[in-house]
Amino acid sequence: MNTLEKLAKLVRYYILTSTTEAGSGHPSSSLSAVELMVTLMFRGFFSYDISQVDYPNNDRLIFSKGHASPLFYSLWTAAGALTEEELLSYRKFGSRLEGHPTPALPYVEAATGSLGQGLSIGVGMALNAKSIDKLPYRTFVLLGDSEMAEGSQWEAMQIAAHYKLNNLIGILDVNRLGQTGETMYGHDLSAYEKRIASFGWKTWVIENGHNMSHIASAYEQALAVTGAPVMIIAKTIKGKGVSFIENKNGWHGKALSKIECENALKELGEVDRSITGRFAKPQSCKSIEYILKIRLKDNGYGNEPIATRKAYGQALVRIFPKHPEMVVLDGEVSNSTYAEIFKETYPDRYFEMYIAEQNMIGTALGLSRRGKIPFVSSFAAFLTRANDQIRMCQYSEANIKFCGSHAGVSIGQDGPSQMGLEDIAMFRSIRNSVVLYPSDAVSTDKLVEEAANYKGLVYIRTTRSATPIIYPASETFPIGKCKVVRESKNDFVTVVAAGITLHEALKSYEDIKKDGIFIRVIDLYSIKPIDIETLKSAAQQTKAIVVVEDHYPEGGIAEAVRSALAGSKTPIYSLAVDNIPKSGTPDELLQFENISKDAINKTVKQLRQENI
Amino acid sequence: MNTLEKLAKLVRYYILTSTTEAGSGHPSSSLSAVELMVTLMFRGFFSYDISQVDYPNNDRLIFSKGHASPLFYSLWTAAGALTEEELLSYRKFGSRLEGHPTPALPYVEAATGSLGQGLSIGVGMALNAKSIDKLPYRTFVLLGDSEMAEGSQWEAMQIAAHYKLNNLIGILDVNRLGQTGETMYGHDLSAYEKRIASFGWKTWVIENGHNMSHIASAYEQALAVTGAPVMIIAKTIKGKGVSFIENKNGWHGKALSKIECENALKELGEVDRSITGRFAKPQSCKSIEYILKIRLKDNGYGNEPIATRKAYGQALVRIFPKHPEMVVLDGEVSNSTYAEIFKETYPDRYFEMYIAEQNMIGTALGLSRRGKIPFVSSFAAFLTRANDQIRMCQYSEANIKFCGSHAGVSIGQDGPSQMGLEDIAMFRSIRNSVVLYPSDAVSTDKLVEEAANYKGLVYIRTTRSATPIIYPASETFPIGKCKVVRESKNDFVTVVAAGITLHEALKSYEDIKKDGIFIRVIDLYSIKPIDIETLKSAAQQTKAIVVVEDHYPEGGIAEAVRSALAGSKTPIYSLAVDNIPKSGTPDELLQFENISKDAINKTVKQLRQENI
Repeated sequence: MNTLEKLAKLVRYYILTSTTEAGSGHPSSSLSAVELMVTLMFRGFFSYDISQVDYPNNDRLIFSKGHASPLFYSLWTAAGALTEEELLSYRKFGSRLEGHPTPALPYVEAATGSLGQGLSIGVGMALNAKSIDKLPYRTFVLLGDSEMAEGSQWEAMQIAAHYKLNNLIGILDVNRLGQTGETMYGHDLSAYEKRIASFGWKTWVIENGHNMSHIASAYEQALAVTGAPVMIIAKTIKGKGVSFIENKNGWHGKALSKIECENALKELGEVDRSITGRFAKPQSCKSIEYILKIRLKDNGYGNEPIATRKAYGQALVRIFPKHPEMVVLDGEVSNSTYAEIFKETYPDRYFEMYIAEQNMIGTALGLSRRGKIPFVSSFAAFLTRANDQIRMCQYSEANIKFCGSHAGVSIGQDGPSQMGLEDIAMFRSIRNSVVLYPSDAVSTDKLVEEAANYKGLVYIRTTRSATPIIYPASETFPIGKCKVVRESKNDFVTVVAAGITLHEALKSYEDIKKDGIFIRVIDLYSIKPIDIETLKSAAQQTKAIVVVEDHYPEGGIAEAVRSALAGSKTPIYSLAVDNIPKSGTPDELLQFENISKDAINKTVKQLRQENI
Repeated sequence: MNTLEKLAKLVRYYILTSTTEAGSGHPSSSLSAVELMVTLMFRGFFSYDISQVDYPNNDRLIFSKGHASPLFYSLWTAAGALTEEELLSYRKFGSRLEGHPTPALPYVEAATGSLGQGLSIGVGMALNAKSIDKLPYRTFVLLGDSEMAEGSQWEAMQIAAHYKLNNLIGILDVNRLGQTGETMYGHDLSAYEKRIASFGWKTWVIENGHNMSHIASAYEQALAVTGAPVMIIAKTIKGKGVSFIENKNGWHGKALSKIECENALKELGEVDRSITGRFAKPQSCKSIEYILKIRLKDNGYGNEPIATRKAYGQALVRIFPKHPEMVVLDGEVSNSTYAEIFKETYPDRYFEMYIAEQNMIGTALGLSRRGKIPFVSSFAAFLTRANDQIRMCQYSEANIKFCGSHAGVSIGQDGPSQMGLEDIAMFRSIRNSVVLYPSDAVSTDKLVEEAANYKGLVYIRTTRSATPIIYPASETFPIGKCKVVRESKNDFVTVVAAGITLHEALKSYEDIKKDGIFIRVIDLYSIKPIDIETLKSAAQQTKAIVVVEDHYPEGGIAEAVRSALAGSKTPIYSLAVDNIPKSGTPDELLQFENISKDAINKTVKQLRQENI
């Protein structure tokens, strides 16, 4: 038995013992890919300096089929990176070895477990190597056959081919069985081959995915390909190596009992636990250094109204010299989001992602995990398309800036399908997210810079129509603060607004002033984190809070304010989008939804009448 | 000039005049598909009884490229269904002719405008004809080339081939140009053909998509295909018929000015506005009648703990005889969501949608629009994958029931990727949605029935682990109400819980009672709509409200309660998931996130100490 065979046996031993110890997990899905992965990692195809996890030239390995985590952890144990003791902590509270991989363990490139996302992450890492850092490292992605049903896979597939990512290698583990039964194509390798080839990938089919010399020869050829990404498509047996679960339905996501495990280990025979798998040495490289040109020009906004979406594009250009890790992605609407302003100035750092938002976010995650700061834009409405990918970003310690343009009914004639009305709710619900909503070009400019400086997930909501400049160029906009833009000692109530509604609030201020009523107006440009202190003062000093937002009521700004003011006895009223939105002019729609200056006037006057 | 040519000319005239009158819209994207659609509709291929929009055998036409709405409205005007006067109301406030199609106009099968969704809706309609209602009507979907980048298209593609939907015909308008520039494949028809064919579709390529006899012959052959869906792939010119915009970048989503329009109309020449396009007559059919077997059996839950997800599956079986329009779809996790219980009993009404959630929701929408009641299930976490499709359902007057299983950290060892922690926020933010969260088998059973009886979008959140039965079989659970499950005259504070946390609240009740403190416990099984009256009473009668939920704080139950109690002076505290979730046992994780009975005990005791 050669070393590779011994390693495969050892990895099987680890898979079985760790899952049975945990009492749950996915041994059968892990066993099918043992030879594919052992050959990749320990026969010289995978270059990795195990002493320097962050070494820029380390190859990258992503388990898109994240449920095969027992295999992943077993491989790194066989490589000496994890102890057998730690392996047995799998799935236990506090362990780095979670049910599905997360970067709690440094060998994990990104959290997976929501299927069909790993290839997009791989696209980001491969794009980084090929087009940004210009490094020779390769990105390998282990894919399950079930997850090929996810559309996001085909988004990744087309973009990888479009950008000719020949440093991206997919390994498709066709073990025939999904969670509940046979996949759509079972063991028909040609079904996968023709689809994948039609998308512009080079394909290699391995009829026996447990034959390590066949596998090795596929890798040899795959790594020599130029000009296209490569998919290795291997026929495997789910549960391989344990006769009583091999190729059997009903064994998905099920650990063997102690007795079953003993029997399986007997079948496996003697295991050499003294051997260690070795990686190839990565090519040496100097550390990546970006040339800073930190003299930032000033966008110098005058008095002309300008759309915040346009200021977004201009801000990207302005701050790039100070943030050379920036990369800008857009979903084929860059002339609407104004990411095109950046594209025109720094074409090498702009990547067109076409109308495929899920892959766009996955790619951004891959770029982020390789040290970039991706700014990703589309219509706010269409970012909901990638909600699951955005959700997964929060478990990958990602550093991504999302920009959603065309927020709210104020976009006008295009109608509800194009209106972002749930985006604040979506982004607020992401753990540790930052949600920003500028109202003029100056605040947009500053907030884009704040976003770049902040490490984490930041959402910036922009508006379609031009809005007046309300801030001087010297104003600062720290994350977590807000601006009190109108204030007096006699303020009756406080109107909290952001983005388009701030301008309505300011108009309302002027209107109501004529009746001798003063309102405090707060620009809540940072919706999350939220400026609790300033809101509390307003709640203490005025009789009510009226929140006006171009968003549905649930999960939006009013609820954020209510949570911030929990415990306060000041009543909080919400003016939000509550009629079925439709086409019309922006003004007609603000009016229709009761979020215009007239609606604010009416609400405030009514509160005055009620003598609250 | 024959009638068809005259109609094409008339439709162009309508496209140009209506968009110029509106001052916005997408004339260039409409002009490319004029011949494709005129030939389809007015040369006998499209069967439709214009006097009976609801006629079951009418063919269905979906504009997946919803921005070509000017073409859609112009076709129906040419067919005499709309007046020229109404056509000129396009995009105006109050018009049925919105910027992107919505069912405000009865000829619109479903709202489109978020690209890449129409084919899935078509799958639902075709599946209905082929496998449920057994009707000969056909479903036609007009697709744009840009939107083929959306992964959801390929999800729909694979499922349509899997179910051999030969009554589904896609028409791909390859006009080369997207919004910002050339698409990935430009005018390379073979790029589309090989991809689409590899997915199991029959394809027809039309080299000149403006030649109506070529188009007619493609339709003739397409309609004769058996055993597979058909895609007609046509090379077209964006802006066709207006020389100065034809095939030019920069004319996407841009109406011609008045002068440009006049010039375009001059080019077009004389138009015969007296002609009317005629449809073929649909095959006659009797109305669909479902045989009701309304004697429902009782699921008869005893005292054994049972998971609400299991009760969901059992409830589906129980209520089907009373709701024969029900169809159950699941994303290849039916043994986790327990939709498999329905599948085993009524296999003809269960459709496996594999791991492709976006298409699953689109298919459900198509089924709903043909009178079915789809129940759609996956893990709560993975329904976020289809957020954009769910968002679009709200604009289609859809009647769909979503079930998300494995909600919250209480799923345990599988880790954060599998935990639904943002799902309540997502579903609450959908306009007019209903959000239900049962805590035991009895309430699940009843709420599934309530959901079936309710016309609209309903979300049901279920729990992985078995929970005790707390309600008698006779209990009722109306939507919009809640249950006060523990109550006395001396209640100190009110604990509002739902699902898994209700059981923690009940345990806490017993614990704290020993210290002589009584808490009111409310089961908020209906999170939206919410029972404002009962919450208000609790707020008046007790000193504080403590909301405990297995969900992130934002957009969840606490914020729903805060909105419901806006204006109340009773403080509302939130216990929600706020540490980075990880693997562990359910109990360890409830503890870690401070949503266990111990956390409730501690909070209540602290409030007592503070003497609020």
